[in-house]
Amino acid sequence: MQKITPWEVEGDIDYSKLVKEFGTSPISDPLLKRIKKHTKDLHFMLTRKIFFSHRDFNWLLDEYEKNNKFFLYTGRAPSGDIHLGHLVPWIFTKWLQDKFNVELLFQFPDEEKVVFKKDLTFEDTEKFTKENMLDIIALGFNPKKTKFIIDTKHANLMYKPAMQVAKKITFSTVKATFGLNNQSNLGQIFYTSMQAVPAFLPSILKKKNIPCLIPLAIDQDAHFRVSRDVIPKLGYYKPAIIHSMFLPSLLGPKGKMSSSSEQDTIYTTDSPSTVESKIKKYAFSGGKPTLEEHRKKGGNPDIDVSFQYLRMLFEPDDKKLSKIYNDYKSGSLLTSELKEILIKKVNTFLKKHQQKRELAKKQVNKFIL
Amino acid sequence: MQKITPWEVEGDIDYSKLVKEFGTSPISDPLLKRIKKHTKDLHFMLTRKIFFSHRDFNWLLDEYEKNNKFFLYTGRAPSGDIHLGHLVPWIFTKWLQDKFNVELLFQFPDEEKVVFKKDLTFEDTEKFTKENMLDIIALGFNPKKTKFIIDTKHANLMYKPAMQVAKKITFSTVKATFGLNNQSNLGQIFYTSMQAVPAFLPSILKKKNIPCLIPLAIDQDAHFRVSRDVIPKLGYYKPAIIHSMFLPSLLGPKGKMSSSSEQDTIYTTDSPSTVESKIKKYAFSGGKPTLEEHRKKGGNPDIDVSFQYLRMLFEPDDKKLSKIYNDYKSGSLLTSELKEILIKKVNTFLKKHQQKRELAKKQVNKFIL
Repeated sequence: MQKITPWEVEGDIDYSKLVKEFGTSPISDPLLKRIKKHTKDLHFMLTRKIFFSHRDFNWLLDEYEKNNKFFLYTGRAPSGDIHLGHLVPWIFTKWLQDKFNVELLFQFPDEEKVVFKKDLTFEDTEKFTKENMLDIIALGFNPKKTKFIIDTKHANLMYKPAMQVAKKITFSTVKATFGLNNQSNLGQIFYTSMQAVPAFLPSILKKKNIPCLIPLAIDQDAHFRVSRDVIPKLGYYKPAIIHSMFLPSLLGPKGKMSSSSEQDTIYTTDSPSTVESKIKKYAFSGGKPTLEEHRKKGGNPDIDVSFQYLRMLFEPDDKKLSKIYNDYKSGSLLTSELKEILIKKVNTFLKKHQQKRELAKKQVNKFIL
Repeated sequence: MQKITPWEVEGDIDYSKLVKEFGTSPISDPLLKRIKKHTKDLHFMLTRKIFFSHRDFNWLLDEYEKNNKFFLYTGRAPSGDIHLGHLVPWIFTKWLQDKFNVELLFQFPDEEKVVFKKDLTFEDTEKFTKENMLDIIALGFNPKKTKFIIDTKHANLMYKPAMQVAKKITFSTVKATFGLNNQSNLGQIFYTSMQAVPAFLPSILKKKNIPCLIPLAIDQDAHFRVSRDVIPKLGYYKPAIIHSMFLPSLLGPKGKMSSSSEQDTIYTTDSPSTVESKIKKYAFSGGKPTLEEHRKKGGNPDIDVSFQYLRMLFEPDDKKLSKIYNDYKSGSLLTSELKEILIKKVNTFLKKHQQKRELAKKQVNKFIL
């Protein structure tokens, strides 16, 4: 049983099953080759199939090769602090921006979680919007080519096109797609219309049709399953999409890292000692119960969360990663040693990130549309 | 059978039944007396019970008497040209503004009809918004105390509070209240949240809780049956409401004047000869089939549309109106003569209105929030 909506990820996630269920296309080797023609090298999130699925990426490259450049669109619902899981699609988005030299529209749908979380208010989301922006800027997006759009702040731009989208979606559709029901509130029902807008807003503002590529975690695909049918009816290109897997929770390889529990989550503002203690205490291990058994039979890196974090985020070098994989599997690398490797990597990353996060405080206004 | 929603008025309208069904209060003589204490005289729309029903008007006067002044809120969905039926609540609203010397927030929910009418676009509503504003300004609202708010143009102000309203209304509620269903589009479902906002927007902007009075035709009551439960949960006063009857269609005393048919509608921009021909041709008569029979048995002013227009809009003088009523009932006044009285009244009114409508073109910007 798996349940994947923008607001719930439950059960074992079988990504190849999702490709079939959602009707997306797996990232194929010929597609990678085609991307590489433009990017010279390939990000490890592509070669390792962390970004594993897409919609219309080939069409996007057709247009790109005809000199019809795309823009990127991704986003963040500001409902809490940023954790490592959030970074996966954004780090890749920055790579895309650099390699293709394209604009990025970064949405902060501040109303989304307000209508989905009982106790969350706009006072909360305002605070989180400010904080979350620092993390996003710290990742190094090009300030000349990146714009932040906040749903309630930019409603003058967004509400009218959202209503044009809303006109073409029935309650039946959102019921089926998002699992909403008669007790759902009007904000929850309407919201997907707002999430559609950044996919064609630049086309409205620049008065010409511009292709759009949306890098996102697969749980957000539902919004675009709906709006990709609607957007062409308004006269704009169907956005292309590229989907990432979820970074697993510290507690195990199932589900995704989420802010619902402090214990399974490493935040970007965690101190080195907090990171160390969270990983040592909670990171689910693929190792054997005893040192002796581990040395003899070896561990299972495929279910080991520390190894997965290295694979998905912190060890770009394929050779080094492969050595860690083999050493852990053979038993020569212990769980405690593997955790030490990860702790060091995470803390090195976070030290720099936290410095850039401080510097970002002066840059925020430059990024807001 | 009667069906009254903001988008449909069907069947015989039994106003006293509506008071019971909707749970409103009839306008009583003690209430009229209380109003008169402040207004010195009473508008004929009150004494004749054209405004026949209310919610919490006594509470509003309690507050007013404690020096807690209210503001007025009414509106117009800009989906066509203005006809005489639209003027009933607005003429009364202007009277209230003058007598109580209060501010008026006038909403133009331009997205409403876009999501309810298949072929209506925002290009259409933009045109109608401009045209409709001229009619409203021509009625003489105080430019220093009247502000126009247009939903898509002022979404920066409205969308966030609308989402706070939306969070507290379920699909079940709008299904039951507005007759929506699973095939309704997301814009239709969401819209009522936007209609709630002007009832407390001045309280947000001025950072203090201000009572609100909404004069409207009874079909719009549904929105506030829903939002009057929600608004206090956001910390604002429940708005008070005063309800008017519908001006009947030219074609008969049932239903209401609407733009769905040119034949049953007199527009504010109609020429004198158009008005004359529409009334002569279409105005439903309470007269007898033959002149002879009419002279002998008399007509029925209660179902005669020309008489009703005089009563509801064009003959403020009770004595004159009463004479016309009695003369028509006795048969001494013929249908053709009654129609002549109305034609003259309408054309006198429209001549001035059209002049003021021209002058209004230079004033529009002063009125927009």
